[in-house]
Amino acid sequence: MSAIWDKLHEECGVFGLYDVGDIEDIIADTYYGLYALQHRGQESCGMAVNDDGVIQLHKDVGLVSEVFSREVLERLPRGKMTVGHCRYATTGTRSASNAQPLVVRHVKGSMALAHNGNLTNAAELRREYEMQGAIFHSTSDTEVIAYTITRHRLQAASIQEAVVGAMAELKGAYSLVIMSPRKLIAARDPMGFRPLCMGRLGESVVFASESCALDAIGAVFVRDIDPGEVVVVSDGGSVESIRTHCAGERRAFCSFEYIYFARPDSVIDGSAVHTARQRAGALLALSHPVQADVVVGVPDSGLDAALGYAQQSGIPYGMGFLKNKYIGRTFIAPNQKQRENDVRIKLNPIAATVKDKRVVLVDDSIVRGTTSLKIVKLLREAGAREVHMRLSAPPFLYPCYFGTDIDSSENLIAYKHSVEEIAQIIGVDSLGFLPVEDLPKLPEGGCGGLCDACFTGNYPVEPPKAGAKSKFENKFSESTGD
Amino acid sequence: MSAIWDKLHEECGVFGLYDVGDIEDIIADTYYGLYALQHRGQESCGMAVNDDGVIQLHKDVGLVSEVFSREVLERLPRGKMTVGHCRYATTGTRSASNAQPLVVRHVKGSMALAHNGNLTNAAELRREYEMQGAIFHSTSDTEVIAYTITRHRLQAASIQEAVVGAMAELKGAYSLVIMSPRKLIAARDPMGFRPLCMGRLGESVVFASESCALDAIGAVFVRDIDPGEVVVVSDGGSVESIRTHCAGERRAFCSFEYIYFARPDSVIDGSAVHTARQRAGALLALSHPVQADVVVGVPDSGLDAALGYAQQSGIPYGMGFLKNKYIGRTFIAPNQKQRENDVRIKLNPIAATVKDKRVVLVDDSIVRGTTSLKIVKLLREAGAREVHMRLSAPPFLYPCYFGTDIDSSENLIAYKHSVEEIAQIIGVDSLGFLPVEDLPKLPEGGCGGLCDACFTGNYPVEPPKAGAKSKFENKFSESTGD
Amino acid sequence: MSAIWDKLHEECGVFGLYDVGDIEDIIADTYYGLYALQHRGQESCGMAVNDDGVIQLHKDVGLVSEVFSREVLERLPRGKMTVGHCRYATTGTRSASNAQPLVVRHVKGSMALAHNGNLTNAAELRREYEMQGAIFHSTSDTEVIAYTITRHRLQAASIQEAVVGAMAELKGAYSLVIMSPRKLIAARDPMGFRPLCMGRLGESVVFASESCALDAIGAVFVRDIDPGEVVVVSDGGSVESIRTHCAGERRAFCSFEYIYFARPDSVIDGSAVHTARQRAGALLALSHPVQADVVVGVPDSGLDAALGYAQQSGIPYGMGFLKNKYIGRTFIAPNQKQRENDVRIKLNPIAATVKDKRVVLVDDSIVRGTTSLKIVKLLREAGAREVHMRLSAPPFLYPCYFGTDIDSSENLIAYKHSVEEIAQIIGVDSLGFLPVEDLPKLPEGGCGGLCDACFTGNYPVEPPKAGAKSKFENKFSESTGD
Amino acid sequence: MSAIWDKLHEECGVFGLYDVGDIEDIIADTYYGLYALQHRGQESCGMAVNDDGVIQLHKDVGLVSEVFSREVLERLPRGKMTVGHCRYATTGTRSASNAQPLVVRHVKGSMALAHNGNLTNAAELRREYEMQGAIFHSTSDTEVIAYTITRHRLQAASIQEAVVGAMAELKGAYSLVIMSPRKLIAARDPMGFRPLCMGRLGESVVFASESCALDAIGAVFVRDIDPGEVVVVSDGGSVESIRTHCAGERRAFCSFEYIYFARPDSVIDGSAVHTARQRAGALLALSHPVQADVVVGVPDSGLDAALGYAQQSGIPYGMGFLKNKYIGRTFIAPNQKQRENDVRIKLNPIAATVKDKRVVLVDDSIVRGTTSLKIVKLLREAGAREVHMRLSAPPFLYPCYFGTDIDSSENLIAYKHSVEEIAQIIGVDSLGFLPVEDLPKLPEGGCGGLCDACFTGNYPVEPPKAGAKSKFENKFSESTGD
Repeated sequence: MSAIWDKLHEECGVFGLYDVGDIEDIIADTYYGLYALQHRGQESCGMAVNDDGVIQLHKDVGLVSEVFSREVLERLPRGKMTVGHCRYATTGTRSASNAQPLVVRHVKGSMALAHNGNLTNAAELRREYEMQGAIFHSTSDTEVIAYTITRHRLQAASIQEAVVGAMAELKGAYSLVIMSPRKLIAARDPMGFRPLCMGRLGESVVFASESCALDAIGAVFVRDIDPGEVVVVSDGGSVESIRTHCAGERRAFCSFEYIYFARPDSVIDGSAVHTARQRAGALLALSHPVQADVVVGVPDSGLDAALGYAQQSGIPYGMGFLKNKYIGRTFIAPNQKQRENDVRIKLNPIAATVKDKRVVLVDDSIVRGTTSLKIVKLLREAGAREVHMRLSAPPFLYPCYFGTDIDSSENLIAYKHSVEEIAQIIGVDSLGFLPVEDLPKLPEGGCGGLCDACFTGNYPVEPPKAGAKSKFENKFSESTGD
Repeated sequence: MSAIWDKLHEECGVFGLYDVGDIEDIIADTYYGLYALQHRGQESCGMAVNDDGVIQLHKDVGLVSEVFSREVLERLPRGKMTVGHCRYATTGTRSASNAQPLVVRHVKGSMALAHNGNLTNAAELRREYEMQGAIFHSTSDTEVIAYTITRHRLQAASIQEAVVGAMAELKGAYSLVIMSPRKLIAARDPMGFRPLCMGRLGESVVFASESCALDAIGAVFVRDIDPGEVVVVSDGGSVESIRTHCAGERRAFCSFEYIYFARPDSVIDGSAVHTARQRAGALLALSHPVQADVVVGVPDSGLDAALGYAQQSGIPYGMGFLKNKYIGRTFIAPNQKQRENDVRIKLNPIAATVKDKRVVLVDDSIVRGTTSLKIVKLLREAGAREVHMRLSAPPFLYPCYFGTDIDSSENLIAYKHSVEEIAQIIGVDSLGFLPVEDLPKLPEGGCGGLCDACFTGNYPVEPPKAGAKSKFENKFSESTGD
Repeated sequence: MSAIWDKLHEECGVFGLYDVGDIEDIIADTYYGLYALQHRGQESCGMAVNDDGVIQLHKDVGLVSEVFSREVLERLPRGKMTVGHCRYATTGTRSASNAQPLVVRHVKGSMALAHNGNLTNAAELRREYEMQGAIFHSTSDTEVIAYTITRHRLQAASIQEAVVGAMAELKGAYSLVIMSPRKLIAARDPMGFRPLCMGRLGESVVFASESCALDAIGAVFVRDIDPGEVVVVSDGGSVESIRTHCAGERRAFCSFEYIYFARPDSVIDGSAVHTARQRAGALLALSHPVQADVVVGVPDSGLDAALGYAQQSGIPYGMGFLKNKYIGRTFIAPNQKQRENDVRIKLNPIAATVKDKRVVLVDDSIVRGTTSLKIVKLLREAGAREVHMRLSAPPFLYPCYFGTDIDSSENLIAYKHSVEEIAQIIGVDSLGFLPVEDLPKLPEGGCGGLCDACFTGNYPVEPPKAGAKSKFENKFSESTGD
Repeated sequence: MSAIWDKLHEECGVFGLYDVGDIEDIIADTYYGLYALQHRGQESCGMAVNDDGVIQLHKDVGLVSEVFSREVLERLPRGKMTVGHCRYATTGTRSASNAQPLVVRHVKGSMALAHNGNLTNAAELRREYEMQGAIFHSTSDTEVIAYTITRHRLQAASIQEAVVGAMAELKGAYSLVIMSPRKLIAARDPMGFRPLCMGRLGESVVFASESCALDAIGAVFVRDIDPGEVVVVSDGGSVESIRTHCAGERRAFCSFEYIYFARPDSVIDGSAVHTARQRAGALLALSHPVQADVVVGVPDSGLDAALGYAQQSGIPYGMGFLKNKYIGRTFIAPNQKQRENDVRIKLNPIAATVKDKRVVLVDDSIVRGTTSLKIVKLLREAGAREVHMRLSAPPFLYPCYFGTDIDSSENLIAYKHSVEEIAQIIGVDSLGFLPVEDLPKLPEGGCGGLCDACFTGNYPVEPPKAGAKSKFENKFSESTGD
């Protein structure tokens, strides 16, 4: 899909389940939980099961439905706890080596970790550990987190004490689910960059990146994990909250979760995602009004905001495109004509909606602009008289160091071009982005503080030094030595 | 998908391409054409290529993207003509034996056929041929059609004369694409039950079940094949129309193509499908009005009509559900809880839209009622105060003999229950079906006559005798002999 | 394997099982029976099961162990009769369309056929049927046989009468297992070109191409089917033998079955294959003696004859090569060096055996000579001082029309070169072929007459006219019409 | 295969290649090298390529031909160095987590390791590192070795210095190939338990477990790596030998490598494996003579010794069995009859050889005795009058701690029964094992000292304490903590 679609990628979804004895099939529930989080990572996925203290792991490259065949699901033991993960990887090669959960053995036993986010001081920590003889199997931050917890575990009285100790050293974004032989632990960084919530399935406890995963298994949403909080589930399902790191730092929840990453049916930090997107559309209608005949959204990510724009502006909402729902690992023929047509395979304009109309086209954002150009062209060919594009995000200008793949300003069209230039490049009659100052209005009650660094460069945590946005996924490079 | 979704199935999509020399990659274009027709049949698919008179065939069980791997696509010769097909099979076993196109060799050479529809006199013809020593490899009507054409070919001066001759014997629904060593032929039964259209890709000629397949490859729509018409493309791309069977019989285009089967972005027999569905919603708003706060559609098939209902009624349109777009060959855990929850894995209500609201829920139709029951339950759990269900089709009461899988009145909830009873069974506050008399209003200009037999029992062609709705897919039964 | 090995191929193995009620798992037994016949055809395989008159079929491209996964084996019904087949196809493309058994439905019910051999009048029969309106799905002789039986079935009182009637029209080689709704039938052509035997598994009846398949399932060998005989198993396992075609024609059992095709542990027409091969080696030692230090065979097909040569000559038998037993669908790197080395991947000389020795190298036959050249080179590199090659078959000079893939004299090194020239081409110090006149001595008692046409051109049945050795496998060509 | 065959398993094969610039395709050569070592490990395999200092890795569960598809082979970069590995794993679950090579990153860069053998102090070293904060991803000794080298690397001037330093701490068996960013290193433990040799492919350098892998790629054998030696290949292919650990300790090469594990065409430590096995047969004929008519070997591992027995005794050598060469991942039907027959699917006696004969049956060893029992039964059924079994190994009595899977005396039939009892259990007329005192005679010149601990309990290195034969493959157990 990535091959024909110019979108940002979230890098992970996490899930955990602690069965107090009332769960019929913990493997099935974990499977469906991951399934509901698939949008947060389509490259690889995995599940670790704690079977009476022994951790079994299955992970591989592929979608949840591919990695977990019927055979695999039947073979996994029906243990008492699970940790699950799905992941987007930025490299092209299919490799399972960075898949999660990460399962390691340390002096006090074994531990499984699932992580969503990005540390800003991973390189420093890694270097420090390497100087003491540590070896690393991957380039993932998760392995750095595992080391940090392990080192604290040597002195700590309990695994949760080790997690709390490690959090004092970890900088950046992390929503974690950790499984020890006898406990299941959820932890969220002090600024709460990435979502993490807790639910109950009967008396059993569930952790998930988004509430939609709770819905998928029929669990009841209990609450979000607070920024800085550590929640520990231990024997019999008793739940302990440790708030050592919940002090008064600012919150910095990723605004792009509301705009694009999260599923519209999730509720995060008190605010429904669908509503936030609809509101973005309504705010766009206020800041960038236009005379038009129909408002259409780019499926699926522009639909909510398009509805909001239509309702606010009074211009009728229409269905502008048919999205081919069988799109998958489609082979794209390597010839010129097909490459130009690639979007058409996924999206076909509904001429009945747009022909001879002035169309407001709503999408969530523009990264490089290549896809927008093609979509606008399709609309014109289908007979649209005017195309007015509205984006429910401000222009991307700065790299993200907290868990998405905006890796360099160089690849961002808005970094190099003015709004007018972009309008001309993608061929629209007018172009409007969500004003940055409208961002705080998206979640209900403002959500206590959003991260808008990719739009403003205003980083809530100091970014890593010197191009530290690692490019070494699945490779190991060597600068020194022999 | 079928395992968790109570829907009718179309049985086929057909495609053909005749390259006059301006097509860059005929295999890629056929692939994308089939891809766009995938909704008409997800069980098996195939492609036959005419490489200088020699026909090569690749077909198998699976989606287009599965059957046609990069390897297969590269291996197939870049011939001058292709015929493609995708198919829904009613049996549970995965078998390639009924996949199409069917390629056969007869006395005058070889021939490939792709067929959408169902004959009503297949059993009689089959028996007649068997009495003369014929053997059959499958139970499909397509093999009967191939025999009929072959028998006419013995005397006919040309393949097209044989096709026209055969059509005098074939009763029922058939939209055919036929490839002989030197010609590509499209034929539609005299009542035009199933869609079939023609386009141009440059000077080359394309046939497809729906116009969306033309769009997918950048071809220009030329016109629908008329009921009873035979269109022959031969050397150099010359196009001949034979109208022997286009006489004054009534038209009987399947009304359920407009309501559910066809893709909303297709235009069939002069009428846009999306518009027909929107109109169905508007007509429902007129015939079954209700006081409510929001109109939501069941994704994806109820969305167009929901928009029409909203626009006509003035009740706001909302997004009621999030459909998991990664749904595929999902393994459904075989325990009771999961079976109850199965719809939830595919659809999750967006509580922000429906909570404390009076909801108009629009879907296309009800078959057995099992899925509707679950969807309504989901809405209630998400806080909907009232649920008023509206269906953009009339109640199904009679089996279809023309190419869909309504096989017996016994399985149709509306055959056994009144509207009030159904409302009670599925748990809605009110229930309204599209009035049968509104059906002709769906397509623009009425489309010259629709088949509404599944709603009315008024069959445009005499149905087969004695429960002839065959159950022998992929099996061979034996009543006599030894 | 074929890619790196210059060998002739047998084209089929057949198997049938009729359960009188004492078989634990008919599917497992058929699977193991086919498994034991795998050497007769590695390209595709299949199994048809008669489940109370309804025939279910599973066949595909691949080895028995690949086509019949655990899932498939579990899914197939435990019926009362089975027919199995494995096949070698001469085309490079992987296609299931010519796989067997062939299952067809005719006027008196359905029928499954498995065939080993080649008809010499298939083209004439095919043409005759086509002129009467028949259509063909494949280019296989099996479909012609099915038609012929079907046509006789129209008038015949029983399926066996139809088979006997059809045999009067079929010319050439055929060992058949046929399953009707209620009967299992074995038939062998009047000259007995290909093997076919009968066994008992308890009271149940088994048919198989070779006795090794009986051994594999623990069945007891009963007897060979006689040339021209039809054996019918019907209700309760009663066995009837019809000897209409067993008249006094000459026998013509394929001599190359003894030399190479059959498994050494099989006993065919009264003679053990291993013994026949050992005897071939002994006869070679008599006709082509040489002073040497060690006799080695080319694994696996030259080992038996090498042992015979060693025993007769008194020269010690040695192990000259290690054959890599993991060889399978190995990817051969497409560069020059690797292509030269390809044999080395499969065979490695054991230097300890051949270094500084005068070596007698025994193999079964030479086709094009390419493999022999490489093997001799390996021996020289391993230090062999002299290499004396002995072949347990006479030189191939003529095409075979009875079921192997010697398709043209052009590809046979012995057709174009003298023995001395061949010796020089492949680089041996001396070369000796089995004298044609020794052929009748291979089987015990001479076996009643062998076919030696590929060595002598003396065809026991008139070969087809005009290069009728078909090249159309899996393709359909067109000479006339449109 | 393991499911139906009662054999010991070697645990690994290693391979390395350093291209000085004259190798056409380093990936193809590594592939064929691994292919030739497949018999040393069939569970998983892998290859690491050094592409200008960046190490890319591909490894997975499966045979070499399965893991390295054409696609994978084409995708891997044509770097300058490779390390390859194939592995047998003792657990039943298919998991890639213990597959090798192991690639890790430490403070001075990255490193790939491939290991054959077993450490006896792995648990102690692991514990020591864990107490200092180390985490482990696997339970393999290889990770312990990687840590040990890494810790030495912190102070060492070079990677080879670190390897030599680490060797002072590692106890037990290890044949290693190590790749650093700029060097390829081979190291063998001071007693030389496992084989390791060096060759030249042109000027390029090859390391491999056995010489057969050199043959497979056309490389020339140079010499064995000496026990305790470290060989370093660096820039331009210069080769350095470090003999720090080559001091006067006793040698202890695994005698079972000669008897069973190694390929007969390999030459190890100066002695041809085939010759060693033939000699074992001859020695058996001297120590356990018998009056008989034919000597047959159990394919493939008993064939060489059978030939030696025949030559020494003068009793004719015969082919007693046909081994089905298509045996692979065969599904064994889970019913009683089939389980009894399982050996028959793989081996079929050749009745012509054994009927009415007094048979000497030669195999390499007896582990549990279950397979021998079945083979003897097959011979009896085929008509053998007497069966005299001879084993080319002494009886197994003690566990092995140096790289094979003899894990407990409890599973060894010879530990619990006398020779006479075993003869009775497996049903032979006489039974003879190779006398332990004959072991040193197998290799030419005695090979400087063999390990015979599994036969004598005389361990050359102190075995680990307290049942340290780990059972934790692929699982992580937890005794303490939470």
